[in-house]
Amino acid sequence: MALIECVPNVSEGRRPDVVEALVGAIRRVPSVRLLDYSSDRAHNRSVITMAGDAAPLKEAVLALFEAALPLIDLRAHAGEHPRLGAVDVVPFVPIEGVTMEDCVRLARDTAAEVARRFQVPVYLYEDASTNPARKNLEDIRRGQFEGLTAKMAQPEWAPDFGPATPHPSAGAAVIGARMPLIAYNINLATDRLDVAKKIAAAIRQSSGGFRYVKAMGVALQHRGIVQVSINLTNYEKTPMFRVFDAVTREAARYGVTVLESEIVGLVPAAALVGSAEHYLQLASFTPDQILENRLRRQT
Amino acid sequence: MALIECVPNVSEGRRPDVVEALVGAIRRVPSVRLLDYSSDRAHNRSVITMAGDAAPLKEAVLALFEAALPLIDLRAHAGEHPRLGAVDVVPFVPIEGVTMEDCVRLARDTAAEVARRFQVPVYLYEDASTNPARKNLEDIRRGQFEGLTAKMAQPEWAPDFGPATPHPSAGAAVIGARMPLIAYNINLATDRLDVAKKIAAAIRQSSGGFRYVKAMGVALQHRGIVQVSINLTNYEKTPMFRVFDAVTREAARYGVTVLESEIVGLVPAAALVGSAEHYLQLASFTPDQILENRLRRQT
Repeated sequence: MALIECVPNVSEGRRPDVVEALVGAIRRVPSVRLLDYSSDRAHNRSVITMAGDAAPLKEAVLALFEAALPLIDLRAHAGEHPRLGAVDVVPFVPIEGVTMEDCVRLARDTAAEVARRFQVPVYLYEDASTNPARKNLEDIRRGQFEGLTAKMAQPEWAPDFGPATPHPSAGAAVIGARMPLIAYNINLATDRLDVAKKIAAAIRQSSGGFRYVKAMGVALQHRGIVQVSINLTNYEKTPMFRVFDAVTREAARYGVTVLESEIVGLVPAAALVGSAEHYLQLASFTPDQILENRLRRQT
Repeated sequence: MALIECVPNVSEGRRPDVVEALVGAIRRVPSVRLLDYSSDRAHNRSVITMAGDAAPLKEAVLALFEAALPLIDLRAHAGEHPRLGAVDVVPFVPIEGVTMEDCVRLARDTAAEVARRFQVPVYLYEDASTNPARKNLEDIRRGQFEGLTAKMAQPEWAPDFGPATPHPSAGAAVIGARMPLIAYNINLATDRLDVAKKIAAAIRQSSGGFRYVKAMGVALQHRGIVQVSINLTNYEKTPMFRVFDAVTREAARYGVTVLESEIVGLVPAAALVGSAEHYLQLASFTPDQILENRLRRQT
């Protein structure tokens, strides 16, 4: 069975009864596991994490739209977080026994059905994008709900699915497929913030570093040290060990050592196994050699 | 649910119908997954690999004894591999959601029931052993079936459970709990066999090295290189990364580099995750942060 993660972001973080109604709609879909949900009042936004196989996840996303549309009206929505729609962003993330291509197909199927059933225009993003200029979520969401009518009037912002104008209350949705994010911090045995900032600049894509790294230097004042705070957006193409080694080398150039690193939240097993393979110089290793994988497969 | 591996070794490797009868008895136990079985004619011995929770595994071991006793007579058994009994050795191996203590308890419960139900004397071994002098399988099995009556007459070789004399046809059984073995080889970029042998001697317990390492130097003649061939009997206490680093340092002393390493067969995920933690200097990491573990737990 495929294991796919789906993390819908909805534009409601202040009315718990509404959030419960949305989560309840997902709970009623068989074979979907609700893993987590949390709301941010300032953002007026909630993030729901669920997992399952493709068909039940698609059904759960449709159930979420069906529940959200009568309850969330973007014309009356305010919050700090940028948003385009009621159900704002829906990424599908391949976890196990499933390829990115499978998740792209699932994202497109789901997007087509959302547009058809609810008359909500949908943009595809990240790996599901059909247009390089519309790959980044930030670009798609620029102008927000309030600017959506004007934006959609431009030919290059015609949606991938659905009507050519926004849904009156629900705006538009952004549905796509992406790799799991890894929030990965490397702490340096120094209080020199300039060093952390220089290393962050050296490793992040935006200033010439690795393709799938976002990074910044921050001070951990309570500990008297600094941190290179990293988001790894594709651990297969920019692996953890390569980033760790690069930070170690850059730090040495300033006479600084790495104190420790840390993973915030969740990490795919393959990212850690890949690091072990690298440092142990493992030849011809396959995931099938991991005992737990073997035990689980042969049910 | 606990995931425990159980790997019974039985003294029959030449009569396929007998082996099939034994495996069939295991297959009929619900909730036990038969993962593998293979027979060795020269050894006249078969190894069965199964997995499951404690209660069904205990039931499967009892079913195996019940099937084996009328079919295997040690008085008529010959083979190259040392053996004490019809069902010769039964190790329980903790894999996931289960501690070694749980497996020790399971081994003792199973041993008591085997002795009670079949009048077969049972020795506990490895982590389940109650006596430091009777921890190693080799020590318990020394003298084999043929020497068992004389051995059991010695007070220090009274069995842990069951009668004080061997079962006439089935001898005695050795039941216990142990860590999973990792067969781990490190290939050196040289054809100097003496270097591989010296490194093997430096890292293995028997000659002063790591507590849970067995190692030997061998030539891979078809490739023109040599190998340090390692059995890691407890990867938690003697981890892969420590052995790899030690081999790398010892090799450097002879001007030799590590070409690659390889895992033969299966490896517990924790052994690889532990290596990643080490090299990435991960602080306060828990297995609960591995996405797949989280997804699986919250069913």
